[in-house]
Amino acid sequence: MNLLWIVPVSGVLALAFVIYLVRDVMGRDKGTPEMQQVGEAIYKGAIAFITRQYSTIAVLAIVTAVVVAIVVGSFTEGVETEAIGIIGTDLAIRTAIAFLVGAAASALSGIIGMYVAVQTNQRVAAAARTGVGEALKVALRGGAVSGFLVIGLSLVAVYVMFEIYGGSQGGENLRFAPFLIVGMGFGASFVALFAQLGGGIYTKAADVGADLVGKVEAGIPEDDPRNAGVIADLVGDNVGDCAGRGADLFESTVAENIGAMILGSALYVVTQSALVANPNLPITPEAWIFFPLVVRAFGLIASLIGVIATTSIGGIKLNAGENPMNPMFRGFAVSVVLSAIALFFVVNTMLGSIWFFWAGMVGLVTSVVLVLIAMYYTESRWRPVQTIARASLRGSGPNIITGLAIGFENTAAPVIVVSIALISSYWLGTQAIAQLFPADTEFFLGLSGSFVGGIYGTAVATMGMLMTAAYVLTMDTFGPIVDNAGGIVEMSGAPAEMREGTDALDAAGNTTKALTKGYAIGSAALAAFLLFSAYLDKVALVREDMGLPLSVVDGAHVVNLGKVEVFVGAMIGAMLIFLFSSFAMSAVASVAERIIVEVRRQFKEIPGLLEGLPGAKADYSRAVDITTRGALRAMILPGILAVATPIIVGYVLGAEAAAGLLMSGTIAGVLLATVMNNGGGAWDNAKKYIESGEFKDEQGIVHKKGSEAHKAAVVGDTVGDPFKDTAGPSVHVLIKLLATITLVLAPLFVK
Amino acid sequence: MNLLWIVPVSGVLALAFVIYLVRDVMGRDKGTPEMQQVGEAIYKGAIAFITRQYSTIAVLAIVTAVVVAIVVGSFTEGVETEAIGIIGTDLAIRTAIAFLVGAAASALSGIIGMYVAVQTNQRVAAAARTGVGEALKVALRGGAVSGFLVIGLSLVAVYVMFEIYGGSQGGENLRFAPFLIVGMGFGASFVALFAQLGGGIYTKAADVGADLVGKVEAGIPEDDPRNAGVIADLVGDNVGDCAGRGADLFESTVAENIGAMILGSALYVVTQSALVANPNLPITPEAWIFFPLVVRAFGLIASLIGVIATTSIGGIKLNAGENPMNPMFRGFAVSVVLSAIALFFVVNTMLGSIWFFWAGMVGLVTSVVLVLIAMYYTESRWRPVQTIARASLRGSGPNIITGLAIGFENTAAPVIVVSIALISSYWLGTQAIAQLFPADTEFFLGLSGSFVGGIYGTAVATMGMLMTAAYVLTMDTFGPIVDNAGGIVEMSGAPAEMREGTDALDAAGNTTKALTKGYAIGSAALAAFLLFSAYLDKVALVREDMGLPLSVVDGAHVVNLGKVEVFVGAMIGAMLIFLFSSFAMSAVASVAERIIVEVRRQFKEIPGLLEGLPGAKADYSRAVDITTRGALRAMILPGILAVATPIIVGYVLGAEAAAGLLMSGTIAGVLLATVMNNGGGAWDNAKKYIESGEFKDEQGIVHKKGSEAHKAAVVGDTVGDPFKDTAGPSVHVLIKLLATITLVLAPLFVK
Repeated sequence: MNLLWIVPVSGVLALAFVIYLVRDVMGRDKGTPEMQQVGEAIYKGAIAFITRQYSTIAVLAIVTAVVVAIVVGSFTEGVETEAIGIIGTDLAIRTAIAFLVGAAASALSGIIGMYVAVQTNQRVAAAARTGVGEALKVALRGGAVSGFLVIGLSLVAVYVMFEIYGGSQGGENLRFAPFLIVGMGFGASFVALFAQLGGGIYTKAADVGADLVGKVEAGIPEDDPRNAGVIADLVGDNVGDCAGRGADLFESTVAENIGAMILGSALYVVTQSALVANPNLPITPEAWIFFPLVVRAFGLIASLIGVIATTSIGGIKLNAGENPMNPMFRGFAVSVVLSAIALFFVVNTMLGSIWFFWAGMVGLVTSVVLVLIAMYYTESRWRPVQTIARASLRGSGPNIITGLAIGFENTAAPVIVVSIALISSYWLGTQAIAQLFPADTEFFLGLSGSFVGGIYGTAVATMGMLMTAAYVLTMDTFGPIVDNAGGIVEMSGAPAEMREGTDALDAAGNTTKALTKGYAIGSAALAAFLLFSAYLDKVALVREDMGLPLSVVDGAHVVNLGKVEVFVGAMIGAMLIFLFSSFAMSAVASVAERIIVEVRRQFKEIPGLLEGLPGAKADYSRAVDITTRGALRAMILPGILAVATPIIVGYVLGAEAAAGLLMSGTIAGVLLATVMNNGGGAWDNAKKYIESGEFKDEQGIVHKKGSEAHKAAVVGDTVGDPFKDTAGPSVHVLIKLLATITLVLAPLFVK
Repeated sequence: MNLLWIVPVSGVLALAFVIYLVRDVMGRDKGTPEMQQVGEAIYKGAIAFITRQYSTIAVLAIVTAVVVAIVVGSFTEGVETEAIGIIGTDLAIRTAIAFLVGAAASALSGIIGMYVAVQTNQRVAAAARTGVGEALKVALRGGAVSGFLVIGLSLVAVYVMFEIYGGSQGGENLRFAPFLIVGMGFGASFVALFAQLGGGIYTKAADVGADLVGKVEAGIPEDDPRNAGVIADLVGDNVGDCAGRGADLFESTVAENIGAMILGSALYVVTQSALVANPNLPITPEAWIFFPLVVRAFGLIASLIGVIATTSIGGIKLNAGENPMNPMFRGFAVSVVLSAIALFFVVNTMLGSIWFFWAGMVGLVTSVVLVLIAMYYTESRWRPVQTIARASLRGSGPNIITGLAIGFENTAAPVIVVSIALISSYWLGTQAIAQLFPADTEFFLGLSGSFVGGIYGTAVATMGMLMTAAYVLTMDTFGPIVDNAGGIVEMSGAPAEMREGTDALDAAGNTTKALTKGYAIGSAALAAFLLFSAYLDKVALVREDMGLPLSVVDGAHVVNLGKVEVFVGAMIGAMLIFLFSSFAMSAVASVAERIIVEVRRQFKEIPGLLEGLPGAKADYSRAVDITTRGALRAMILPGILAVATPIIVGYVLGAEAAAGLLMSGTIAGVLLATVMNNGGGAWDNAKKYIESGEFKDEQGIVHKKGSEAHKAAVVGDTVGDPFKDTAGPSVHVLIKLLATITLVLAPLFVK
């Protein structure tokens, strides 16, 4: 049965839900005049940055679209869609349009998500006057706008483009439609890279700069209105965390979805010919291509119900005095259980083999396990954060060494979990294919049935994992919203007990941000294999078209690390991750320096500012402006590096070396991003743990805010900030960008 | 022509040189009674540690030898040496003996090198009274003992074992002899891993522990005799840098040499059959196997002349008032030029194709370029160190972020250089084979001539690079010797102008240590491909023996990253590097903590110690003992992890996945070691740069010792220490261990 109708239905549902949420949130009280004033300043700064950032990105994207069109249009042979007559100018225009649609939708996701977040935070601050439960509800609803808009848009955009580019025509056009829309993935990750880089540099440069002068030099509290950098800091939370993450998850889900459809396209061909010989097979050819869309649509609905349960259903929503994380976990559990049920139904209806249900369950379970691992490494309840806090007693050196050691250590568990997930979902896929197809079925391009099925099994696992994406992104956006709300409460001079409530939410927000990163990186690792294989499928089709011999051993595509140029490609791929991270971190340091100079200058030149005399006001907009210009300039070089390296390696060393770069870059990227994300989260929470007053040394003496241990922990947090909020998330986008660039430009690399 | 006679000759020459040096150094003045007292304390502590460390390692090595023998003896098929009747118990005993010989020689290299270094440092301190030139001479000669002993021993040991295990018998026995001695490489790297880990943990735990309590808490100078940890710190320089590095370079040269001989073995077969068809070929079969030994023997002699020139020949040796680095560079240049001449002669005589000379030159040039890159990133004259120093003005957070960014950045240049070296030496090798063999020559195991020749080209490049190894190791050991000499001068209360002289030497020593690490890591990257290929050759022979189909595409062995289990192996390989580094760094932190407690206790409990009252003496031996026990306990877990992981992956996922682990682990290892080594060196030198009083901020204000910037730089150095002296060098050994373990156990992995 064809369940494709659920895709537009889920899209409409998500849109309706978003409209409801926006109306609900926007209709709420904006709080005291002081709160509104601070909120207004954040809003203005964020809009100023986002306008300039996306103007810059738009120019870059249009130039790139033109270049891509010229390159793609120049291919005279070796294009898989030649089979349906799409090559040359026709292909160039379609690719450029797909690129721009992906780019625009990614930009839209980022902008709207951020806009709503900025609007929500002051309402959360206002709601905090009523109580934590109400504040949590408003923050989650604001977060859900981002979550459902981004994930819904990514699903609908892929669906619509797929239908337009041949999906609705059936036959060979349907088969090749997934290849025609890969440009969307490239466009989306191109924009996401710059959005995440620019936003990430902005947020951490502002944070580090404001804190170093304010907290360390001048000795005034965080978010103190005397600090000229403080609004830039609050703006940063929105442009980095909300806009960046939204664009990132948009491109991830787009790329993984298209990759899975490309793999489905291979099974489409196989099923077509198998049906000729054996018309009783329990499957239809197009089911393989539709499945990724359908399963994600059900996931979107499951997430929607989960969010509603979290905010409104008794027994799930927050009980009085409870840790705000608990209702979110209960809601997440609802989404996971509903997703599993839906998965069972979809697999049974469309794919006809229960083995694929188990492959999808592997993905769902993996997502839960990865979330738990990220929690273990970043929550103060457990060993890692406590070890860092304890090391802080001996100074900032030991704090840093221990934090790095914890960061390095925390690569192990996710790699083992993802390894097991990959191998088991692959195996489940091979079983499914063996069940579905007669033993003598001939597969495609010399590939074996077990290889094709195994790869599809990993794709099903990835789709299973992505089912809860909207819920996870909701929790993620919740983080910066409550962080900002706390800042507004502090800056507007609200009473201390209100600050306590928002502090509890802020701590929960830090946890959810870490969880999402664990989820995102895990999905990247799980999806990696799917994306490589999509690339290798495309390369094989190109080689076939050019009359080159197939590169297949044991029924599998070959990426031979034993060849010198492939090994060199792999080495360069891993190096690219380090170099890119270096550029991102240096950018934070250099922009932060400019903010430091500015904040110091204002303290010196504005009479009475430091003393807090009435009438002495900091000039926030200048600091915002300096950060904006610095971050935009700094994002260009790493962005160009990321785009140019795979193209140069592919062009000079060939398609197999490009695959080596992609795979090794993905491995290094997943590991380094895990180090930076969770290491950074652990440092942050070690600092917060000490600030909470709960941390005791071996003699039972409490070391709290202001102690030497706290100072050491602040240094660790300063190091962790560009790790977890700039370089780590940007590396995550970079991995996807490598996959989509190589996918689009594969014909350029085949010689 | 067969030049093999040069190998024993060069061995005897090296030995004679070492004896001469030892007599020369030991006959020198040991300085004032105070100097002798300090020297004696260091000597005792070092011997105490090394005795206990090597007793532990001996137990581990013997157990491992027995286990390896049992495993190897259990192979009933799929062993390449079955062709010459060596299998079962016979093979088991030979492998175990080779393992133990390698282990023992590695241990000997470490122990003697350290012994001489400990004896040399007080003589350098004494010579410093005469002048810098004399001190430099003594230090270099002491360093040369280590350099020539280690490199000479590694060459002679491989040669002797090769001859005994069949090399002298010719024919098929000669062909398989390189496979029979791979156990040596495993034994040597097994010992080196524990030596480097244990020594590395010791040295940095003592350093960090002593500095944190002494310099930071109590505010007394480095190497102050009141500090109970200071002797442990000085001992650490010897057991970590000298013994560890000696064992490391021993196993590297052994493994790379044997790997090159295994590749030669493939060409041996080809040449034999080609000669049947065409007796006029300008080559002999055994030349391919002998070449690596011969070229290294000439390199040993070239290095010997270089060292003599550096210490004794006018125009090359130190001129008055000159930077001590200059004569070392001039001497290095002498070695490089002589090596190039010898290389030309050897290639012409043995391999009959000038293309291989150019391949060797690629290796020589690469070594020089890598040394220059390491200098750029770690000397205070250039941007990287200056950037870190400047970041220190803004506190320890920015210092750490900038240092990490520099560390990440500095992976780029070496990767690009090694990539070019690999591709060009591979290409040169293909040209050589095309020149030497008729076009219709049938190569081996389905491989193409250009693949076999290309790989041999990279092996020739590696051998070219290793020609100057003895000179480089001499410079390296020079580092800890002058560091210790400086400590002795300080502790013995010598006049300030003497300290200035040893400080200049110490700065040079820091540079040479960084250079060697650049050289060592570069050689690891260049040799990686050679070692993989040796493993793949062996796997192919095993598969052939078991009647399995060959896994060859386009004439090259296949390690297919497109297969899920190979990708998973690769992911685990890279993760292993991070996890292992994490364990090494945590070990430093936890052992340091114990030292901190002890030094604090002594300051508190020994009356008058902190005030420096006469008669109040620190109890050095207790601190030494605590460090020793801590370091030995801490080295076990990471050591077992390193040995067990490749075996488990190979056994569970197969030989191709083990290759994936090996290759990806090597890539990640080379990158992370580069980050840690050069990052650590840059942090250290940024601190020294500030201490030198030469560092000025933008306003031209000098920030020197004791300034806030200096304090921040000290934190950076504390972080850099376990990077550059524990984790980084240990990862370097780990890479080689992965290669040798998989090489020995390949039959276990083939299914």
